[in-house]
Amino acid sequence: MRNRFDSQLEILSNTIEEMGSLVEDSLRAAIETLSSLDRATAKHIVAADKEIDQKQKEIEGLCLRLLLSQQPVARDLRLISASLKMVGDLERIGDQAADIAEIVAYTDPSDAPIQLEAIPAMGKATLLMLGQSVSAFTDRDLHLARHVIDSDDTVDACFASAKRELVQIVKNNESRAESAINSIMVAKYLERIGDHAMNVAQWAIFAETGTHHGVSLINGATEIDDK
Amino acid sequence: MRNRFDSQLEILSNTIEEMGSLVEDSLRAAIETLSSLDRATAKHIVAADKEIDQKQKEIEGLCLRLLLSQQPVARDLRLISASLKMVGDLERIGDQAADIAEIVAYTDPSDAPIQLEAIPAMGKATLLMLGQSVSAFTDRDLHLARHVIDSDDTVDACFASAKRELVQIVKNNESRAESAINSIMVAKYLERIGDHAMNVAQWAIFAETGTHHGVSLINGATEIDDK
Repeated sequence: MRNRFDSQLEILSNTIEEMGSLVEDSLRAAIETLSSLDRATAKHIVAADKEIDQKQKEIEGLCLRLLLSQQPVARDLRLISASLKMVGDLERIGDQAADIAEIVAYTDPSDAPIQLEAIPAMGKATLLMLGQSVSAFTDRDLHLARHVIDSDDTVDACFASAKRELVQIVKNNESRAESAINSIMVAKYLERIGDHAMNVAQWAIFAETGTHHGVSLINGATEIDDK
Repeated sequence: MRNRFDSQLEILSNTIEEMGSLVEDSLRAAIETLSSLDRATAKHIVAADKEIDQKQKEIEGLCLRLLLSQQPVARDLRLISASLKMVGDLERIGDQAADIAEIVAYTDPSDAPIQLEAIPAMGKATLLMLGQSVSAFTDRDLHLARHVIDSDDTVDACFASAKRELVQIVKNNESRAESAINSIMVAKYLERIGDHAMNVAQWAIFAETGTHHGVSLINGATEIDDK
């Protein structure tokens, strides 16, 4: 029954949106703890990562069940295989948000990450990329997906700028070593979050067009004739 | 043509073995740099991670092409979807090996990670788990896959022991803060490598049995009748 299949695809899409919201909440909260240094909230973020992991397993199970039982073809098949992959990127973003929170949660406040100028810009850019990448995926919005991919340059530029800022601070002996190390780790986690949001956008493009990292895999579909 | 499909599955299996070897070489070399402190080798490991990323994209492309063009069913479908997922875990192990090498490559030797007693044991255990998990996957060896999953307890116990060692060293003021931080990062990367090797083993079990995190998804296959 096509209707049953469609309703399962809708459940899949809704569950991806739910996971996206959880990860977005976690990242937003983690970024906020960098200025609030609220250790209780930070510990809560670390603990809540389990819920995101659980959501990932749920979506993987949904995708595999759909693949095994419904033998989808064409766009449906691309959508389900892309979903199976993109949740891995969402889960990594969740991990990295938790890693940022962990630094705040388990570091003495005197060793807290330095409030580098580039960090708030990185936080803002990655949070936007994350939300947009999930929307691009669930709304089948190719234009938005391409915008997310372009936005990663901004995050990379901020990361380079954060490193330059930090080198200056360390040279001038203006911070404790622990703070400097924590700062660069936060910047690195944010930079990787940008990469994963870009991957989500790339999976959105694959689901819609069959193009994987610039290579069209749809032409390969003519191989069906070879069977 | 079934023969053509079989030969493509063989290419897939061989390419997974190749990727597994690259990641294993990288991890082995990264662990060695922890005692040799050979920064040239460490920099080479960091640079070589690109090759692993490339291999991942190649395997993903192969899997997606097979899914889209050959419409596999039953075990073949489980094998291909499991392959699509497990390369994500192999890539993360590659990343973490590169992260370990990066610490050696870009840290002043006086800040090098402390040679904690638990680290060589963790290195040995994770390297073994990695090789065994890939073998379990390509040889369809359920017994070996379950052994890998059990082995993760050893890695977790070593991680706990590394933390205890480090707390003692820091309390006795026997190390620089940078060294202590680098040590705990190395231990944490190794602990995560164990988790990813365990995931690879879980995908091996899914490919063979249709069981995903303890839930059988094969029963769902009866839903085909609903179509």
